[in-house]
Amino acid sequence: MIIQLKEGITQQELAALIILVKQSGYTAQAVSTARGSYLVCLGSLEFDIRKIGGQAGVKDVHRVSDSYKLVSRKWKQETTKIKAGHTIIGGQKPVIIAGPCAIESEMQITAIVTHLADMGIKMMRGGVFKPRSSPYAFQGLGVEGLKLFYKICRQQGISIISEVMDIGQIEQMYDYVDLFQVGARNTQNFNLLRALGEAQKPVLLKRGISGTIDELLQSAEYIFSSGNEDIILCERGIRSFEHAYRNTFDINAIPVLKQKSHLPVLADPSHGIGIREHVTAVALASIVAGADGVIYEVHPQPELARSDGQQTLNFEESAQLNQKLQALQQFIQAFN
Amino acid sequence: MIIQLKEGITQQELAALIILVKQSGYTAQAVSTARGSYLVCLGSLEFDIRKIGGQAGVKDVHRVSDSYKLVSRKWKQETTKIKAGHTIIGGQKPVIIAGPCAIESEMQITAIVTHLADMGIKMMRGGVFKPRSSPYAFQGLGVEGLKLFYKICRQQGISIISEVMDIGQIEQMYDYVDLFQVGARNTQNFNLLRALGEAQKPVLLKRGISGTIDELLQSAEYIFSSGNEDIILCERGIRSFEHAYRNTFDINAIPVLKQKSHLPVLADPSHGIGIREHVTAVALASIVAGADGVIYEVHPQPELARSDGQQTLNFEESAQLNQKLQALQQFIQAFN
Amino acid sequence: MIIQLKEGITQQELAALIILVKQSGYTAQAVSTARGSYLVCLGSLEFDIRKIGGQAGVKDVHRVSDSYKLVSRKWKQETTKIKAGHTIIGGQKPVIIAGPCAIESEMQITAIVTHLADMGIKMMRGGVFKPRSSPYAFQGLGVEGLKLFYKICRQQGISIISEVMDIGQIEQMYDYVDLFQVGARNTQNFNLLRALGEAQKPVLLKRGISGTIDELLQSAEYIFSSGNEDIILCERGIRSFEHAYRNTFDINAIPVLKQKSHLPVLADPSHGIGIREHVTAVALASIVAGADGVIYEVHPQPELARSDGQQTLNFEESAQLNQKLQALQQFIQAFN
Amino acid sequence: MIIQLKEGITQQELAALIILVKQSGYTAQAVSTARGSYLVCLGSLEFDIRKIGGQAGVKDVHRVSDSYKLVSRKWKQETTKIKAGHTIIGGQKPVIIAGPCAIESEMQITAIVTHLADMGIKMMRGGVFKPRSSPYAFQGLGVEGLKLFYKICRQQGISIISEVMDIGQIEQMYDYVDLFQVGARNTQNFNLLRALGEAQKPVLLKRGISGTIDELLQSAEYIFSSGNEDIILCERGIRSFEHAYRNTFDINAIPVLKQKSHLPVLADPSHGIGIREHVTAVALASIVAGADGVIYEVHPQPELARSDGQQTLNFEESAQLNQKLQALQQFIQAFN
Repeated sequence: MIIQLKEGITQQELAALIILVKQSGYTAQAVSTARGSYLVCLGSLEFDIRKIGGQAGVKDVHRVSDSYKLVSRKWKQETTKIKAGHTIIGGQKPVIIAGPCAIESEMQITAIVTHLADMGIKMMRGGVFKPRSSPYAFQGLGVEGLKLFYKICRQQGISIISEVMDIGQIEQMYDYVDLFQVGARNTQNFNLLRALGEAQKPVLLKRGISGTIDELLQSAEYIFSSGNEDIILCERGIRSFEHAYRNTFDINAIPVLKQKSHLPVLADPSHGIGIREHVTAVALASIVAGADGVIYEVHPQPELARSDGQQTLNFEESAQLNQKLQALQQFIQAFN
Repeated sequence: MIIQLKEGITQQELAALIILVKQSGYTAQAVSTARGSYLVCLGSLEFDIRKIGGQAGVKDVHRVSDSYKLVSRKWKQETTKIKAGHTIIGGQKPVIIAGPCAIESEMQITAIVTHLADMGIKMMRGGVFKPRSSPYAFQGLGVEGLKLFYKICRQQGISIISEVMDIGQIEQMYDYVDLFQVGARNTQNFNLLRALGEAQKPVLLKRGISGTIDELLQSAEYIFSSGNEDIILCERGIRSFEHAYRNTFDINAIPVLKQKSHLPVLADPSHGIGIREHVTAVALASIVAGADGVIYEVHPQPELARSDGQQTLNFEESAQLNQKLQALQQFIQAFN
Repeated sequence: MIIQLKEGITQQELAALIILVKQSGYTAQAVSTARGSYLVCLGSLEFDIRKIGGQAGVKDVHRVSDSYKLVSRKWKQETTKIKAGHTIIGGQKPVIIAGPCAIESEMQITAIVTHLADMGIKMMRGGVFKPRSSPYAFQGLGVEGLKLFYKICRQQGISIISEVMDIGQIEQMYDYVDLFQVGARNTQNFNLLRALGEAQKPVLLKRGISGTIDELLQSAEYIFSSGNEDIILCERGIRSFEHAYRNTFDINAIPVLKQKSHLPVLADPSHGIGIREHVTAVALASIVAGADGVIYEVHPQPELARSDGQQTLNFEESAQLNQKLQALQQFIQAFN
Repeated sequence: MIIQLKEGITQQELAALIILVKQSGYTAQAVSTARGSYLVCLGSLEFDIRKIGGQAGVKDVHRVSDSYKLVSRKWKQETTKIKAGHTIIGGQKPVIIAGPCAIESEMQITAIVTHLADMGIKMMRGGVFKPRSSPYAFQGLGVEGLKLFYKICRQQGISIISEVMDIGQIEQMYDYVDLFQVGARNTQNFNLLRALGEAQKPVLLKRGISGTIDELLQSAEYIFSSGNEDIILCERGIRSFEHAYRNTFDINAIPVLKQKSHLPVLADPSHGIGIREHVTAVALASIVAGADGVIYEVHPQPELARSDGQQTLNFEESAQLNQKLQALQQFIQAFN
């Protein structure tokens, strides 16, 4: 059960409400975000929620039987719109985010920023802390790389999304990103999720390498219940028995996540298939299936990229993908 | 290596050719279909294929390094167009096939045939031999059901696809189907595949429950190399750790199969996600990703269907899906 | 619900019993095997089974809530002992079955038969119909190979297990095998299972490549409910994301299958890990975990075997494995 | 390539060596642990390692073609023996570690410590920071719980293993644990691994939920290359399609990890199967397959445990498991 609290609820009203909830055999956890205040109440007894609805300070009350609560669409019909930098995610128009796997150099950043600006793309991805299976692989340029990334993007009005691997990096990165990315290896790094819940910046949460839909939503619940509603879910392919591609993009996840949660859902077709020439097919499919946007990898010279080159588009392929995405989006809007 | 033979190749020329191939350290298997004649040659030595190209009776010769040969796109650029009943699969226009999981009654068939005719759909699916996990579940109406199915469809000019589970059923079904379906549990029933290779009727081959791309193509190779080129591949979802849906529709498989093979590829969104309300999203995504068509489940009263009701559309949902598929297809043709 | 019928039940008594069952809202399917007669009754209503227990011709009646019925341990506490050739499977002593992946030649059979006889192994495996992913791979020597296999084994008092791929092969093979093997690609070839249910010869049923425990037991139910109780289950590794080995041997399956079903369970460590040097570890682990025996691959020269050489033991390794299995078995018997 | 350095290598000798390595087209990363000093050298050129072998300060030099280097058995034949508290892991005798999923209370700790002492078990597991899928589930007693755990264990001479979820917890926990555990959700939390590499305390590294053998070894490489050789690998079951059990214990991983790496390997049968009555079967199988020990869950009243009760043994079951493990171990030693 989720109790939405009125903005002006008094301490006394809140205390009385919590007592009432607990007397009914439920726990009550207060959650406060930039958008609202809530009591998340767990219990298994029969319960007449109208009893709560009439209490002072209560805006609304909802039954939510899912294992996740605040991120469930059961209590909030409309998709949450999230502002990250200059971009709205979760609105009518699908968003496009692009950029390299890893930030490599000033020249690389500049080239990509220019390419994105040409195409009207407003947000750039680029890792400076890279989670690599091997300790001997390129680990990213770190905070200095991020500052460079930030400087060049600001000049062009491009917003930034970059991956945070560790609680300690949140503060280091805070001033230089518009959207924190949590990677697939950290989807269940619960302490990191809690810390991001306390930071006042939106978070893109990737699905775990073999994470279930339910686990992804519960991980999002960690962020929300720690104080941050601005969460974007991201399907990036799962690990299956099939080794013809890097990952198996789970197109089912898109309509299912959209139905289960009010959070916007992006698709990462680059990791989702891991083969450059098929990124476009997966990107377009995701949009048709209902994704709120795509995030893909682009590099001036993919074959020279320090990581993920085999799944990264060059500028020409990127421009074609964008043109198709724009056309498809117009078609969908006309059609719906 | 595939050697395409001229139509008029003489026995003598063929014998000479086989000797030459074997002298080069290769095996040679002759394959003859309604469309052409081939020698499939396997070996690992260095080989100058020009030596073959000049021989009498040789039309063309191709290196094919894949584990499958005749179904590979490496030797045949254009997608194979397959005529099944009144339908062309693999042409410009995606095909739509629909029908119930299982044939249940005359009334059911008639209602669906009428619905399909209304929508301009030319081929109906419907199982009469049902592979069910439990011996106590409904096993289908058998050949008598198929004859009824056939009678009603013929009156309306609707073609038929139905699943064959066993060599013994091929002959029983032969006169009443336009397209044999091999189900996911029989993708590696190699004797059945060989027998279908000898039958002169097109075959829709579903991917195995956890079959790899490579295995699917090698299974198709069984059919082709036994004498039948008219094979349609079908992605129907794979088994993964995720239990939020019946199967995990593998959208990656569509562009990848299209690239690797010249055979047309259909999508089965009903089994691919297994949840009625999301069938449309997966169907549309498949078409955008390059599928040559979709095959989905429809029933006058899905909630009363004897099998698969939870993933079966009713007529209204089916009509909406069709309208969207038509619009999307026009968009894609305009766009490409 | 399973109703065990008395041997001398009259037609009249049976008819009366079926009427009573149906009046209670249940279906009733009669099953008759070499060991007994049963009614399998399905339904969901509340039901007092004592009503049945007192009827004429009824030996016993059991509730079985599993999706499978006759193969469930819920109605039959003791493990079924199965006689196949000179071997008892499911008794106190774990059985050992060994032999090549495929029968290749008289010399090969003779060498292996001699090796097995030296070690006191009473049953030999060897495929003559080989289900191979590629149509161009070695497909086995067929029935002629089986006859040769039979001739040599009979001379040495060795029994035979060999894989049947197709209904048509049952009759061809019948006189030359003591135990039919159903391979992992045919675990859900339901028509084959039914036909084997009608044949009066024991069946070893391998788990499907990605078959669940429940599916395996339901497949066994096909055989039993078609008239054959002599079924042995076999864990042979499942398909997972891990490609460091051919399959992932599922050790959990052994205690779980033993608990759920009264059928004996063998382990196939050769396919289960697919790496020669680790076959022994998996074989021993299976026995400790409760398997009723192991079936493994051995060849005089594994490196020259026409299939599966990388997972096949040579005679020395085979002898060592046997010695360890004997010792372990004595330890287990002393300990329990 | 791994270059083992002599203890007394001078700065000058090291510098000269690095220059030589780099001139040969290789990178050189110096690693220094409590046990030794190394240069890890990566490159792909042909290289005569004898050139290095003769240099001043070089103890030995080894080619290691694996993706991991320092944890590979290719350069170190004998299994690494690791002292953690009063326990040696990786020696002749398999170790047994047991304890509750989570530390809950003084009474619970005391009861379990007494039980372990009675059985001669020297190390106790118990989580105080619990990674739970849901933010609303019990998250552990935290550092205060650990101090209590420590106090009671010290009195009885029992060592402690407990899970660390976060870099920030290392220092908090350092004085109260003998062995840090990295859980399955943190196997690729690379920053945590690096920080544990810098801490001078042994680490038990669990395999990821769907982590490959190769990824596990590369994660161990993070710890080793950051300065800590005292790493124990732990197989705890992987995620598969099978939902009859919580996880699929991968018995194959045990011999394969033992062959690929010189690090000791423990088995966690409790998570590996997740069903109390089958924990013993999996534990025994692991030891026979070559594991250096087991770590399992025990609780005075499993049905009242705050987490994992369904897979936790009670004292009687635990005592029986221990008796069987002791007997089996004696058998194995006698046999080898």
